[in-house]
Amino acid sequence: MSFAPFDWIDEEARRRADAGLVRTLRPRPAEPELLDLASNDYLGLTRHPEVTAAAADAARRWGGGATGSRLVTGSTALHAELERELADFCGFEAALVLSSGYAANLAALTALTGRGSLIVSDAGNHASIVDGCRLSRAETAVVPHADPEAVRKTLRAHPGRSLAVTDSVFSVDGDAAPLAELAAACRAENAALLIDDAHGLGVLGDGGRGAPAAAGLAGGDGVVTTLTLSKSLGSQGGAVLGPARVIDHLVNTARTFIFDTGLAPAAVGAALGSLRLLRREPARAARARTVATALYRQLTAAGLTAVRPDAAVVSVRAPSAEAAVRWAADCRAAGIAVGCFRPPSVPDGVSRLRLTARADLTDEQIADAVAIVRRTAPAG
Amino acid sequence: MSFAPFDWIDEEARRRADAGLVRTLRPRPAEPELLDLASNDYLGLTRHPEVTAAAADAARRWGGGATGSRLVTGSTALHAELERELADFCGFEAALVLSSGYAANLAALTALTGRGSLIVSDAGNHASIVDGCRLSRAETAVVPHADPEAVRKTLRAHPGRSLAVTDSVFSVDGDAAPLAELAAACRAENAALLIDDAHGLGVLGDGGRGAPAAAGLAGGDGVVTTLTLSKSLGSQGGAVLGPARVIDHLVNTARTFIFDTGLAPAAVGAALGSLRLLRREPARAARARTVATALYRQLTAAGLTAVRPDAAVVSVRAPSAEAAVRWAADCRAAGIAVGCFRPPSVPDGVSRLRLTARADLTDEQIADAVAIVRRTAPAG
Ligand SMILES: Cc1ncc(COP(=O)(O)O)c(C=O)c1O
Ligand SMILES: Cc1ncc(COP(=O)(O)O)c(C=O)c1O
Repeated sequence: MSFAPFDWIDEEARRRADAGLVRTLRPRPAEPELLDLASNDYLGLTRHPEVTAAAADAARRWGGGATGSRLVTGSTALHAELERELADFCGFEAALVLSSGYAANLAALTALTGRGSLIVSDAGNHASIVDGCRLSRAETAVVPHADPEAVRKTLRAHPGRSLAVTDSVFSVDGDAAPLAELAAACRAENAALLIDDAHGLGVLGDGGRGAPAAAGLAGGDGVVTTLTLSKSLGSQGGAVLGPARVIDHLVNTARTFIFDTGLAPAAVGAALGSLRLLRREPARAARARTVATALYRQLTAAGLTAVRPDAAVVSVRAPSAEAAVRWAADCRAAGIAVGCFRPPSVPDGVSRLRLTARADLTDEQIADAVAIVRRTAPAG
Repeated sequence: MSFAPFDWIDEEARRRADAGLVRTLRPRPAEPELLDLASNDYLGLTRHPEVTAAAADAARRWGGGATGSRLVTGSTALHAELERELADFCGFEAALVLSSGYAANLAALTALTGRGSLIVSDAGNHASIVDGCRLSRAETAVVPHADPEAVRKTLRAHPGRSLAVTDSVFSVDGDAAPLAELAAACRAENAALLIDDAHGLGVLGDGGRGAPAAAGLAGGDGVVTTLTLSKSLGSQGGAVLGPARVIDHLVNTARTFIFDTGLAPAAVGAALGSLRLLRREPARAARARTVATALYRQLTAAGLTAVRPDAAVVSVRAPSAEAAVRWAADCRAAGIAVGCFRPPSVPDGVSRLRLTARADLTDEQIADAVAIVRRTAPAG
């Protein structure tokens, strides 16, 4: 037998090419050439001079990296500051910062569930939640999207320890989860509720305090939230927020916390910079929602099929994966960057453009963007 | 039933307290108060002015965060630069940068294996490899530590697609894997070899090119390496290195790549800064090894039981978990930070101190550190 352990990869690549599903990286230059409606920089803070200065200062003061696990040398006073301010801002007792939102979901799900316990997970949840469920060894019941009654029934059928998990705002369609109803179902069945507020923080709630605060659930006994610092806060990293005993438990047991290097000081600094800016300028959150609504109104007025946005993501249906790819490419050629979601990244097999509302888009930029999306729309 | 879905956490906390296994965070100040022999900053680069300046410049030039998945808006020309230079330095065809070394291991293991395939994993492998095996849905056979014959036999018994995975340098004891023998076993059985070079990069090989290069395996057809940017390169992030088709495959299929925000520009910049510095000053790698050997010689001469270091980690046995904790605390009180590994973070249940050799430790600092470790050593 000849030595060729990766030959199977070529076959898969051919299959992807035949299906028109090849993904390639397109590195961007330092100076934006396109109007950005594709990133998750909802508040337009990632290039704000205060935020980049906070990142730069943190790197100079604390070093290029955290140098070890948070449990060894990787915890700095800057991490502790961010944890205090995040918990305080979002209304939770305590917070724990991890190297990514992905790692935060893996940490929360594996540490708060386990063999013999049940996870009830929305069919539209993010990949990092799906992976957390798999890693946890808990029994996982996937329930229909945004269906609190299905959650309640599934919880009721399981007598032991259980936890329901949901995105607060779903990343593909931008629709919000029925958090109050989910919390009621959890309360009735003595189950914990884990809310991934990746797309809610900075956009929903008073001054951007997030979806749990907006739903009156922040700080609740059985409520835990995961966040990412990589979207509204314009940085990198993730966090878990909850009761102090839950956070202590994660410090002691969560593998993606214990066995991972701490978040780099520059990322901690950038997130802190954004958080402080947002506290000073709380209107940014409402502006992101206003921009999303304007995009939605103008797109539907133009005859396109979009999902009414609950936060800062506007999803527009495309007739096929190929049409979506072509549409996004045409938008790009006309000067705007839009997201393009297609199988296997969509739970329902429906391809769409994904437009993100940035708080710093002007009304003129919104109108221009809509005109381009409309002009380049595929027939049908 | 009252609503208390997290009461079970208190019981676990009590059990941990009774066993003396409580972990707490100890945030450090910006100015080091202790001599650091606990971090993974093997080359002493994380606070090097060139490295922190590169981080700061990248944040200012590119923003506080990558703003999205590498497949949407998260790829910058800076990411591409780092990927080219890492691949070139380590001797591989292509590289892919991820948000952490942890994510890199999850990506490589899940994308390169799967249901029906076999993973053969060393019993001493890092937690992120263990989690990657779990996530992959492949059958996983855990073989005794550093036992190429066991790897060969296990591979031979499985007719289908297979991959062997090993740390190049094991994080707890600092011993090196028998890479040449493992590669021969893989070659004989047409299996891929995945090498986690987290603790080899920057320390082993000509000028720190890493363990695969040192073993003549870099760039091989069936060889893939994962790296972390958080140790010798003083930053944060991870990378997968391998044949271009393998990297393309990861871009298209690895969930912790596709569904995760790109590494923050500051971390990319810091890693690039360190890499360039190391190319200019290749003697740093050898100095880290020299420091490790000096530590080992002086510790064993003082009557302590240490593992002969193959890279920059020196492991010293402690008689019990409690003794190890007290020993580390006494070292800290005397002015040096050392790592303390105990259950459940050690594969064999043996507690130890973990000392890391930094290339920038002076001979006097080494002697002082050894004197303190010796003076504070528990009886027995
Ligand atoms: C809902 C949701 N959760 C978690 C994540 C992961 O966060 P991060 O990219 O910071 O790892 C994302 C996006 O990437 C997300 O959209
Ligand atoms: C062997 C090994 N692999 C992977 C990792 C994970 O790397 P990172 O901390 O950059 O996520 C580590 C250390 O944390 C490690 O020691």
